[in-house]
Amino acid sequence: MKIGILGTGLVGQTLAGKLASLGHDVVIGTRDPKATLTRDGADAFGNPPFRAWQASHAAVKLATFAEAARHAEIAVAALAGHSALAALRLAGDDNLANKILIDVTNPLDFSKGMPPSLFVCNTDSLGEQIQKALPRVKVVKALNTVSAPVMIAPNELGAGEHTIFVSGNDAEARSTVARLLKEWFGWKDVLDFGDISMARGSEMHLALWIRLYGLFKTPMVTIRVVR
Amino acid sequence: MKIGILGTGLVGQTLAGKLASLGHDVVIGTRDPKATLTRDGADAFGNPPFRAWQASHAAVKLATFAEAARHAEIAVAALAGHSALAALRLAGDDNLANKILIDVTNPLDFSKGMPPSLFVCNTDSLGEQIQKALPRVKVVKALNTVSAPVMIAPNELGAGEHTIFVSGNDAEARSTVARLLKEWFGWKDVLDFGDISMARGSEMHLALWIRLYGLFKTPMVTIRVVR
Repeated sequence: MKIGILGTGLVGQTLAGKLASLGHDVVIGTRDPKATLTRDGADAFGNPPFRAWQASHAAVKLATFAEAARHAEIAVAALAGHSALAALRLAGDDNLANKILIDVTNPLDFSKGMPPSLFVCNTDSLGEQIQKALPRVKVVKALNTVSAPVMIAPNELGAGEHTIFVSGNDAEARSTVARLLKEWFGWKDVLDFGDISMARGSEMHLALWIRLYGLFKTPMVTIRVVR
Repeated sequence: MKIGILGTGLVGQTLAGKLASLGHDVVIGTRDPKATLTRDGADAFGNPPFRAWQASHAAVKLATFAEAARHAEIAVAALAGHSALAALRLAGDDNLANKILIDVTNPLDFSKGMPPSLFVCNTDSLGEQIQKALPRVKVVKALNTVSAPVMIAPNELGAGEHTIFVSGNDAEARSTVARLLKEWFGWKDVLDFGDISMARGSEMHLALWIRLYGLFKTPMVTIRVVR
């Protein structure tokens, strides 16, 4: 399958690497490929530069957001919350029209100290803002409640007995993403979480998740819905 | 043990009834006991009036907030979020000084439609506001992430394999509440969740919980922390 990953950070790298290893044709998009390749310091979270990752993932092509979006049968927004809308406008509603965009973003605001707060919540969500900005795209919020290693290998945490939330306005797109999460990564408990406004719930849960991360000093922590 | 439950709604009734059935000396507090007893309609959530409940729970004494607070060795704030601070000022920092106050409240705002949003979040919490309003009290946020029936009978949902969060500035008070939740109600996975600012996490989780309630059409749903 032709997959476009939008964002070259840790989440984008993790998803792109895993999907390429499964044999998919993966293009990873960034604002300015040349700038991404010349950067040689660690990022704000201490992760090595993209160039170092790319050396061991030659099958993944680097391109602009628009090129990655055009390439994609399915796209993934693996973007920092504060720059997600700008990056997705560069990717283009036209280039993504009628395609599924898996939205992995969270509206994290690091400007008020740690742990981060959310720059949108309660009566709106970043998922809804993205859907409004890309009206022809089937935006499906998913995977935003777990860290990158858990996204692609859920069974390495608690034997996979935990829950992932899938929300979006198109029921068929939700169902497709649910199937892909099972096929690609081995997810077991995928919850069909209704329309994109339900992203308010999964994004606000980050306030709890971030504190669990701090408490256990590892991002290898998540929740199971018990019902 | 002498227990003061502040609040005569469904949560207050559920906790008071269970603790009285365990043999504790329970006083339930309200703003105006006479008014509470003469009310004969259902409340905003369709629950029967307090008078109906009291008829089958004669061991639980009704009193003012201040009287219930004075009576208490341990007090419980089982109050609607929007009226919690006013009620606790009536209960009195003096009457509760040096005592543990288990804070079960959530800052739910029903004024913007359903599902409710939160009137405080991100960089503050209702738990912290309560601690600020009652500086001499050992405020311990707990039980706010589950519905009343689950608070007192966790093992009737998912065999009790789910998590409750306990946060507050006094480590010994947290530890006491953790022990009481196990002894009184049979809680198994009680998580020591740090200082009262961690209430931001457990309160903001309500945005997810409320949507799970809506999705499954039952409040008998909660989460297990998988780590």
